[in-house]
Amino acid sequence: MKNFKIALFGFGCVGQGFYKVLENNGQTQSIAKIVVKNPSKSRSLLANRFVYNKEEVLGDDTINLVVEVIDDADEAFEIVKTALSKGKAVVSANKKMIATRLQELLNLQKQYKTPFLYDAAICGSIPILRTVDSYFATDEIQSLQGIFNGTTNYILTRTAEGETYANALKKVQQLGFAETDPTLDVEGFDPKYKLTLLLAQAFGVVVPPTEILNIGINRLLPLDVEFAEKRGYTIKLLAQAQKAGSRLWGYVLPSFVSKKSRLFGVKNEYNAVWLQTRQADEQFYEGKGAGSLPTGQAVAADVLALAHGFAYQYPKIETVVPAYTNDKALRVYLRYVDEAIAKKLGFVADGVTHYAKGYYQSTGTVYLSDLLRNNAAQTEGLFIAALPEGEDENKFLDEEQSQRKKLFEYSALPLMY
Amino acid sequence: MKNFKIALFGFGCVGQGFYKVLENNGQTQSIAKIVVKNPSKSRSLLANRFVYNKEEVLGDDTINLVVEVIDDADEAFEIVKTALSKGKAVVSANKKMIATRLQELLNLQKQYKTPFLYDAAICGSIPILRTVDSYFATDEIQSLQGIFNGTTNYILTRTAEGETYANALKKVQQLGFAETDPTLDVEGFDPKYKLTLLLAQAFGVVVPPTEILNIGINRLLPLDVEFAEKRGYTIKLLAQAQKAGSRLWGYVLPSFVSKKSRLFGVKNEYNAVWLQTRQADEQFYEGKGAGSLPTGQAVAADVLALAHGFAYQYPKIETVVPAYTNDKALRVYLRYVDEAIAKKLGFVADGVTHYAKGYYQSTGTVYLSDLLRNNAAQTEGLFIAALPEGEDENKFLDEEQSQRKKLFEYSALPLMY
Repeated sequence: MKNFKIALFGFGCVGQGFYKVLENNGQTQSIAKIVVKNPSKSRSLLANRFVYNKEEVLGDDTINLVVEVIDDADEAFEIVKTALSKGKAVVSANKKMIATRLQELLNLQKQYKTPFLYDAAICGSIPILRTVDSYFATDEIQSLQGIFNGTTNYILTRTAEGETYANALKKVQQLGFAETDPTLDVEGFDPKYKLTLLLAQAFGVVVPPTEILNIGINRLLPLDVEFAEKRGYTIKLLAQAQKAGSRLWGYVLPSFVSKKSRLFGVKNEYNAVWLQTRQADEQFYEGKGAGSLPTGQAVAADVLALAHGFAYQYPKIETVVPAYTNDKALRVYLRYVDEAIAKKLGFVADGVTHYAKGYYQSTGTVYLSDLLRNNAAQTEGLFIAALPEGEDENKFLDEEQSQRKKLFEYSALPLMY
Repeated sequence: MKNFKIALFGFGCVGQGFYKVLENNGQTQSIAKIVVKNPSKSRSLLANRFVYNKEEVLGDDTINLVVEVIDDADEAFEIVKTALSKGKAVVSANKKMIATRLQELLNLQKQYKTPFLYDAAICGSIPILRTVDSYFATDEIQSLQGIFNGTTNYILTRTAEGETYANALKKVQQLGFAETDPTLDVEGFDPKYKLTLLLAQAFGVVVPPTEILNIGINRLLPLDVEFAEKRGYTIKLLAQAQKAGSRLWGYVLPSFVSKKSRLFGVKNEYNAVWLQTRQADEQFYEGKGAGSLPTGQAVAADVLALAHGFAYQYPKIETVVPAYTNDKALRVYLRYVDEAIAKKLGFVADGVTHYAKGYYQSTGTVYLSDLLRNNAAQTEGLFIAALPEGEDENKFLDEEQSQRKKLFEYSALPLMY
């Protein structure tokens, strides 16, 4: 980290991880100041290592790099904005802040010609942003799917083993992966923010997070897990984006994932990204998406990249970008308590609707725009999951109906492996 | 590719792929010269696009970037050496050349302060070298495993489905993946060259390829596949390296891979790399390891990286590097026709030795150094595969013996998933 005089803002999980990584590399002397809020909190370093006045630090012209890893998104933005406007390079891991202020942050980088790296904000230890930004600059990314949230993936790994959602959530909170208020994770906001960041680099599109649908796993019931499992699927919370001609859509939804998908085997707190590109074809990356050291390592890697002159180029932003749209029909699994809900969403069933113990279960199509407009994410009694595109439709027929169908058609079913 | 005036040496599979990628990006005008050998060969571009005198091109001071993708390793080295010494940046995909001349190439880069990138030489579309070089510079890579050869992985995907080795080889040759003389692939030289490149960046060690054991799949028989399959394993040709304290060993060997490993599901011509690091923990990357466009895309990505000032830093070379050694006992599966062979190799069985139809099959330990010294790679009738470390030992006992053992010990077997 030679030539850097770093001000580290925040000394929580990620901040301490970053410090530890520098310690492992014998480079903690690069950190000139650690800025925290609360002088009375007990900390793992000596008190003289900390300062409490952020304005003073931001006004210090000898500081040339700010590492911002605090929780508060609004305060984080002010720190980053001030730092960039003073010509200080910035590394951040704050996905909410970056996703909600992305256009302003792009403008600031341009205006002040100051680099801003944030690979640690998405998929922890996986270097996905820099890879998309620089390695795939000469390729066309056609679609992507990702598991961007370790907490929910851990919960879904447990529910797939028969645990209830409530118990799995309790367990992940005890392990310290999940916040006391897990809303951002379980309702899919966190992976949506990460998707927002990736959309800019992969497709050149800056989308306000409010325009991207996110539905979480907070209303998952055992009957949903069983429905998926009986048909050979596991449920994952996927962030997806897909380009078709001049259009692009994206969303975060619980999704049925088959064994054919590389995402099927991604378990516990692991994150993963799958890309389909024009030239390289399929690519898949998997690694730890959270944790003090994996994320601290990602922050340190960004700092080192700055030292070597690396900056994001956002190569797709300068080209003809696709139009982001929610005018897209999705095939989904829908579980609901009241037929009026399905009707209101404009859901069109394409198989047999099951009814048992107060719940309807069905498959069919629904528009992203209708889910957004009707606030499907906050509708009690409703669970919705995306079905994989281009897989065997027969699997979603009622089993009996499917048997009957087979008697008449000697269709070669696609091999399941 | 602005500011680059490129001389492209070679217009085979990779050269044409690179040209196609530039075409997709509207940048073929960056290629000033395409240098080929044979003026009478018919080509996909007009004859006036080609030149035949390499000295003239290398002497042209306006050319500032050489892309070298010819077959001949010795000639390739001369081109790269001349280019670097004239201050021209170089991109190459020639793993044999780079692996066998690595120290000289490191010296040339230093002496002339000229960057040399070769991510396309390993794992085609996976950006593994730059990731290890820059992203994991602040981390410690403890071990790595990879499927570095698409041809043999394709063959092994077929033999796992019951095809014979000879038929699978024929098929892969018909598909055009394999060379007419497939020795470099099936005897494991190609993945060994790639491992050699990665050792320098991941561990800071430059090892002559002759000191690294490579045993291929060319003597694989159905009875080997069955032995593995009965115990829940599939056979893959893996390149591995592992650090223990101040020692490092590596090899390319057919290997039993269980479902626990992410490499289990890597099929056909796909390549993959698994890393275990101190801070980021596990990382896994998968993508197409060969093919004109995926490799051409990798070459283009290296050219673009040069345009943005990227150069490999070889961050581990400057630190205390581990001592490369072959003094390492491996647990292996050994199949042989003559007990004298096993004895000569110093093989110590640790289970029941099966004998049927002229073949012995056994598991036990053997030293890397003994395999190298006794030329195990070229011993007729011998097949050898590494067993996974730290997995259930019981699985390698004779089934009957294992049953008996279970009656006495209520040992909890590790879960297979």
